[in-house]
Amino acid sequence: MESDFLKWLSDRLAAHKSVALGPGDDAAILQLAASGRCVVTTDLLTDGVDFRLSDVSPRRIGRKALAVNLSDLAAMAAEPTAAFVSLALPRDGALQLAKELYEGLLPLADKYRVAIAGGDTNTWDGPLVISVTAIGTPSARGTLLRSDARPGDRILVTGCFGGSILSKHFDFEPRVSEAMTLHKNYELRAGMDVSDGLSLDLARLAQASGCGAVLDTSAIPISPDAIKLSQQLADGLSPLDHALADGEDFELLLAAPSREAKRIVRDQPLDVPVTMIGEFVEQPGLWTKGQGGNLQILQPKGYEH
Amino acid sequence: MESDFLKWLSDRLAAHKSVALGPGDDAAILQLAASGRCVVTTDLLTDGVDFRLSDVSPRRIGRKALAVNLSDLAAMAAEPTAAFVSLALPRDGALQLAKELYEGLLPLADKYRVAIAGGDTNTWDGPLVISVTAIGTPSARGTLLRSDARPGDRILVTGCFGGSILSKHFDFEPRVSEAMTLHKNYELRAGMDVSDGLSLDLARLAQASGCGAVLDTSAIPISPDAIKLSQQLADGLSPLDHALADGEDFELLLAAPSREAKRIVRDQPLDVPVTMIGEFVEQPGLWTKGQGGNLQILQPKGYEH
Repeated sequence: MESDFLKWLSDRLAAHKSVALGPGDDAAILQLAASGRCVVTTDLLTDGVDFRLSDVSPRRIGRKALAVNLSDLAAMAAEPTAAFVSLALPRDGALQLAKELYEGLLPLADKYRVAIAGGDTNTWDGPLVISVTAIGTPSARGTLLRSDARPGDRILVTGCFGGSILSKHFDFEPRVSEAMTLHKNYELRAGMDVSDGLSLDLARLAQASGCGAVLDTSAIPISPDAIKLSQQLADGLSPLDHALADGEDFELLLAAPSREAKRIVRDQPLDVPVTMIGEFVEQPGLWTKGQGGNLQILQPKGYEH
Repeated sequence: MESDFLKWLSDRLAAHKSVALGPGDDAAILQLAASGRCVVTTDLLTDGVDFRLSDVSPRRIGRKALAVNLSDLAAMAAEPTAAFVSLALPRDGALQLAKELYEGLLPLADKYRVAIAGGDTNTWDGPLVISVTAIGTPSARGTLLRSDARPGDRILVTGCFGGSILSKHFDFEPRVSEAMTLHKNYELRAGMDVSDGLSLDLARLAQASGCGAVLDTSAIPISPDAIKLSQQLADGLSPLDHALADGEDFELLLAAPSREAKRIVRDQPLDVPVTMIGEFVEQPGLWTKGQGGNLQILQPKGYEH
């Protein structure tokens, strides 16, 4: 099955300036930037945890498997260069499934000029597993870490939050262009992508930076799907609760010096809104401002691995 | 489980000159050679196909998952630099299993100075899957491809062949040092590692190079385990049949100009034997010499994916 599939795939892979040798040998050879710096991320998705093959089209699964990796590269402000795709396919219908996964993945790779430079395609008696490793190139301004936010920096986010389970967790756009545009034109200090929940991921970013964060909960951009989900579930969780905790928003969470943050919010240089939702403070922990401006502890919520 | 495991793992990862940023952020940052060239390979192993978790210790599985990738880098004559390890762990006993996999993998990583620079650790309701992506650095002499053998080049192999199922398919030594030593001190033309069977992989190397290969079957180094397996199975397959077709030998299969090949065989510069087992010819296909020196077709055999 693997050799049939590789024939099918090789017709669909275009030449790429960063790929000196593509699939077919024991390994691929990449020609990266002369700095020799590269950014590498890997995510493994499994049937029953990250998707249900019985409920979702393989195209959306394949697309998501690449998109989560591109979102991680965007979080580092690295330009995606190449990706490697490993599959464990249920034997029954394996070839067709492999093709459909790639039919979802390849258009996204094309859009962001990511070379599919290799992989490993297997069949087995277990459920579908898809593991992608993506390699990116930092811009001249370097990479964006989680650990460089400073007290006084403002908290910025792209897009809106909550209710991603209704569709965005598959169909989100990795914020690659947005990260590159902001990193190029403004001084950013730190960043990550929101995959496990806005409040939980913000608490992690603050902790990695050795500081705390005060969220202005009234400023958090709440997605229409958070409102819809809150109504559907009727479980007492407000749209804001969903925005704070749902996860898989795959938006950028950034720290920028106050003046830069204000410039960004004023300029609105992206196709999606950028919103200021609080600031970093010396006092460790996650906080909100209560009535009268007193700091109140906010319990971080989200998906704990 | 993932955060507990990452704490355990972080205590076991040493600093590495090629890792500018290790696990803990959205992605790792590597500092590769200034040429910007890197070699990337990925292999995904599944329970029931590549191993049986019920029969084999997790340490051997973890070691093998890295070793097959190092063998692929060796096949390109690239020095291993960093590896990324993704796991799908059965929920029951996941933490203990993850630790044991790494306890097999880490000593091999240390031995070849490969940084474990990142990964993705998941639990699920399926069987064990382990996916490793390894990144290597070409030497100043460049990489060794499958496609550069020429008629007249001699066929060289390291070590011996056949019967790997008895133990070598887990406990093999990836021929990293051997590849680097030969590539540095001799002119090699092409190479690969033997993973699917000597005759099948040789046929592939010849085909990739647009030529054929004549095997001197009497010269093939047959492993003691091939003899043992032939006796145990008593299925009419000779030790030579096993050496030609068994696969998972993870030895180097090389093409070198005739004079260089003779020098290598005379010098025996490695801790394992290097043997000349034939030559490449213009006539495509895989051949042996029959009585009187006439070429006879040899059917390539091995593991077809």
